[in-house]
Amino acid sequence: MASPFADIVDLLNITPPGDEFAVERVKERDRKLTKPPGSLGELERLVEFLARWQGKAKPTMDSPMVAIFAGNHGVTEQGVSAFPRAVTAQMVANFTAGGAAISQICQLHELNLRVFELALEVPTGDITRAAAMDDRMCAATVAYGMEAIAGKPDVIAIGEMGIGNTTVAAAIYAALFGGTGADWVGRGTGVDDAGLKRKADAVDRALARHAGELGDPLAVLARLGGREIAAMLGAIIAARAQKTPVIVDGFVATAAAAVAHAANPASIDHCVFAHTSAEHGHARALAAMGKTPLLDLGMRLGEGTGAALAMVLAKTALHLHRNMATFESAGVSDKS
Amino acid sequence: MASPFADIVDLLNITPPGDEFAVERVKERDRKLTKPPGSLGELERLVEFLARWQGKAKPTMDSPMVAIFAGNHGVTEQGVSAFPRAVTAQMVANFTAGGAAISQICQLHELNLRVFELALEVPTGDITRAAAMDDRMCAATVAYGMEAIAGKPDVIAIGEMGIGNTTVAAAIYAALFGGTGADWVGRGTGVDDAGLKRKADAVDRALARHAGELGDPLAVLARLGGREIAAMLGAIIAARAQKTPVIVDGFVATAAAAVAHAANPASIDHCVFAHTSAEHGHARALAAMGKTPLLDLGMRLGEGTGAALAMVLAKTALHLHRNMATFESAGVSDKS
Repeated sequence: MASPFADIVDLLNITPPGDEFAVERVKERDRKLTKPPGSLGELERLVEFLARWQGKAKPTMDSPMVAIFAGNHGVTEQGVSAFPRAVTAQMVANFTAGGAAISQICQLHELNLRVFELALEVPTGDITRAAAMDDRMCAATVAYGMEAIAGKPDVIAIGEMGIGNTTVAAAIYAALFGGTGADWVGRGTGVDDAGLKRKADAVDRALARHAGELGDPLAVLARLGGREIAAMLGAIIAARAQKTPVIVDGFVATAAAAVAHAANPASIDHCVFAHTSAEHGHARALAAMGKTPLLDLGMRLGEGTGAALAMVLAKTALHLHRNMATFESAGVSDKS
Repeated sequence: MASPFADIVDLLNITPPGDEFAVERVKERDRKLTKPPGSLGELERLVEFLARWQGKAKPTMDSPMVAIFAGNHGVTEQGVSAFPRAVTAQMVANFTAGGAAISQICQLHELNLRVFELALEVPTGDITRAAAMDDRMCAATVAYGMEAIAGKPDVIAIGEMGIGNTTVAAAIYAALFGGTGADWVGRGTGVDDAGLKRKADAVDRALARHAGELGDPLAVLARLGGREIAAMLGAIIAARAQKTPVIVDGFVATAAAAVAHAANPASIDHCVFAHTSAEHGHARALAAMGKTPLLDLGMRLGEGTGAALAMVLAKTALHLHRNMATFESAGVSDKS
């Protein structure tokens, strides 16, 4: 029987290249704008990034979407979080009601917020004792993530909510990049020293429990991963196919990108990393993939907040690219 | 006869402390918001910064001002810029017409842009051969900067425009912090290697020309500084007195803060540094003052663009602080 992951593996290996023609057109316009060439630094790179992966010489941000995927985790039984599991569903309600940080960032900056709940009432297996998901469930959840963004946003920021998921993400990183629990866990929502030790122990026990079954990235995802991480992987995969550039949030969202990267590094070329989380391990994971994030603001909230701030930068960058005067139109003398 | 700088020196030594009571009220509200404590990192610090220096338990950003000061420089005679001096006035017109990067950032994010021209038709003296300004002119220009922000913005971002002013700023840094021209100059608007060498030489000649007259920070400003740098110093001083927190832009704007810092480090406690410029020397100047900037986006445009982006962060941070739900109002379980 074919692996439930066969289609996903195929998609991860189909990596349409970026549109360098569109990038050249962007650079051509950029050189005419009233500023020294290159002087907007990463803002210029962001416009080129949009052009490259949208395949548009005139990139757009007409329908920017912040997509948050929420899941619950059996590993919370191991005392790995400062907050009770019920908070996942409560925060999902808060996202929708407009009370969460991500809700207010989206409201202020006119970004579309979409929240996808993943069977919150049925947590994944406790990874210290069982697989998080069986392969079929994992593949179905990846497929759900692909469907979730089918409304064709022209740029998407992905983030997550899930009490316990920094432990799960740490386990994924350890399985993909090596090291022990202590190398990858951090304080998450704010555990104390004892909680931090419980997190490291939980990761180490999960790695031992599933040793021998962590040979490929999708197996790692099924054994150790949460539903929200599987769904974010699906969103990343679908975004490539539908020419939607992706802005990846922090420690947990990056774990989804890391699974894709482990399968095929080119499969995340259409992703930009928003910020370095204060969560121990995020900088290490980004470095392991050779990725440099845009911001470093000591944030560790998740729920797409870092990605949304990077989206505001991208929106600003595109607004400048579109609306600044040229040397000619403004009557400004060009470089002597 | 009293020094023309006597009043300025007095003001630099009057440094009313921040309002720690207001900061405590902000922290108190922050602890109730639906997020793990501390998880918004620098965004939380920004709200505390506003509260501390506005002296308001409920800080505001009702009238954020981006103030750009523009000046011309005799040192352009030394071939230190990639653009002709006429560009200063042309860009001032572009700011007002809405075609510049800063115009478009302000338009998108609803920030008030004010542009202050400083006798563009009368460049300062060529610092390799004469003082930039006499002491009386320098003091008057500082006073002009104080007046400029008297409309009482509740937060101010300061930036500048002036062909040749990265050379002038480099000379100020070298005089204040030591080192030679080569330690402080960079490519500015984009000079080639020969231009870079001309900049370093111009700084070295200016330092030699004025050696013995660089004993105090305001003398450094008069001998080496541009009018826009003097005016930014005035704005920084006046902001402290009128409880307006300041967001300082890049390499050239920071030179104004460095003059104040050299006179009295506490005089710039109400300033936050927006970003690390790609201009060689900025990181060094910030480190010399023990300041950590918010952003590092490889920008080197000046005209307040980095400061305006940091202002957008501050605006976002304050919006979250004001509008997020509390654990109680949202029915979210607090830390277990």
